[in-house]
Amino acid sequence: MLKKGMTLYIIGLGLNDEKDITLKGLEKVRSADKIYLESYTAILQCGKERLEELYGKKVILADRDFVEKGSESMINEAKEKEIAFLVVGDPMSATTHLDLYLRAVKQNIKIEIIHNASVMNAVGIVGLELYKYGKTTSVVFPEEGWDVQTHYDVIKQNKASGLHTLCLLDIKVKEPGKEDLMNNRSAKGVEPRFMTVNQAINNLLSIEEKRKEKVFTEDTLCVGCARLGGNDMIVKAGDAKSLLTEDFGGPLHSLIVPGNLHFMEEEALTLWK
Amino acid sequence: MLKKGMTLYIIGLGLNDEKDITLKGLEKVRSADKIYLESYTAILQCGKERLEELYGKKVILADRDFVEKGSESMINEAKEKEIAFLVVGDPMSATTHLDLYLRAVKQNIKIEIIHNASVMNAVGIVGLELYKYGKTTSVVFPEEGWDVQTHYDVIKQNKASGLHTLCLLDIKVKEPGKEDLMNNRSAKGVEPRFMTVNQAINNLLSIEEKRKEKVFTEDTLCVGCARLGGNDMIVKAGDAKSLLTEDFGGPLHSLIVPGNLHFMEEEALTLWK
Repeated sequence: MLKKGMTLYIIGLGLNDEKDITLKGLEKVRSADKIYLESYTAILQCGKERLEELYGKKVILADRDFVEKGSESMINEAKEKEIAFLVVGDPMSATTHLDLYLRAVKQNIKIEIIHNASVMNAVGIVGLELYKYGKTTSVVFPEEGWDVQTHYDVIKQNKASGLHTLCLLDIKVKEPGKEDLMNNRSAKGVEPRFMTVNQAINNLLSIEEKRKEKVFTEDTLCVGCARLGGNDMIVKAGDAKSLLTEDFGGPLHSLIVPGNLHFMEEEALTLWK
Repeated sequence: MLKKGMTLYIIGLGLNDEKDITLKGLEKVRSADKIYLESYTAILQCGKERLEELYGKKVILADRDFVEKGSESMINEAKEKEIAFLVVGDPMSATTHLDLYLRAVKQNIKIEIIHNASVMNAVGIVGLELYKYGKTTSVVFPEEGWDVQTHYDVIKQNKASGLHTLCLLDIKVKEPGKEDLMNNRSAKGVEPRFMTVNQAINNLLSIEEKRKEKVFTEDTLCVGCARLGGNDMIVKAGDAKSLLTEDFGGPLHSLIVPGNLHFMEEEALTLWK
């Protein structure tokens, strides 16, 4: 029998279902001693059962608590075993996994990253050039006392340079709220929820109403996306007001606010109007 | 026997070798009647033979001429057959494929995109947050009479907003030069070449020498990357001057000019110094 390396594989699953894993990723999963699935920064469009069926192995769900606190034990396991840590999308698109990566490197764990598609490149299908996106932003569910307007400022800044803005929309999967954080405790099993394109537009319009800087009005051209990379993907382009009443279905949603348009980008957007 | 759909599959191969294709992509390739490999905007790290061995099928190379002129015939084929068009990286990260997509849609061809990793997300491994990248730019081989400084301006603009800049470095794979373009003819079989991190830095320093705006000096912190997503990936961080003498090996190279650094980003960069 071959002696196994002590390795932590951080493997991207891509955007949709169990078949979006790469051949390389699947090989590592099949040879791993233990498999964790990160389950709070993104949502898999298929159940964990379908992964288990494909892999022929048990998959352990890892929530935010696990990754931010408990992953120390996973790093320790990787000193003696092959551990596969599965991440929806691409592994290195989120800061949390960077933190995991750095902690493992410090402990001399061998790490291998298996890349995959993420929303940040799959959004290319909309037809706006990836080159011409400025800073990315996120729109979070408002919490009492926290008046977040960062996304409005990012759109403003990108627009001033003629650049597109990708707004990633919030998702809450058993994640601690402000109250939990202030009391330094884990999430009290909050119901999972995700922000819709409609909610994000409403959020931006309400900031516009306060600030009146004409950054995001009812006439602002927007592109709403749902389930990018999936067969049931929806992309719709139109002014903010018209998208407010469109139904984009289940998670995940994202919102794009285009900057200056090249004629080919304009042509591409007509596909979704 | 099942009746096949008339479909054009545009399938991302990921960044490194034949095993970076997704299971979904491989299924489509195996059921396709004809397989084309786009072979001029990026380089596969393995030979086409390894693809053919994995697929059990012949793969036809498609150069720029083919995609920009001849792909009309491929679109016609897709009216009666299943065609797989393979793209290194992710299919929708380059404008050329968007053009293909639009042309096919106009002719009522059914199209399916199979996403994969691209340099634009794989660059996350460096440890600079993907959120905080501004506009992307490319550095092209200088041609006589064309004094391109766009990348210098993009870096300047991104830095002013504290954002990182990803510079994609030029690659010439049998691509028409200025003279070819002016004479409206195809490339005269130019030798393939790719721009190194060192060349890109020299290019930026020479623009700095002319413009003296202190956007990119010998002291500017840079991150040079080669073969992102591959096992033989190289990432090196340091000031421009020190990276000038580093050897990054074979293609593809990219250069990152960081903006303001968060402490975790600083920590990540120390891995590569």
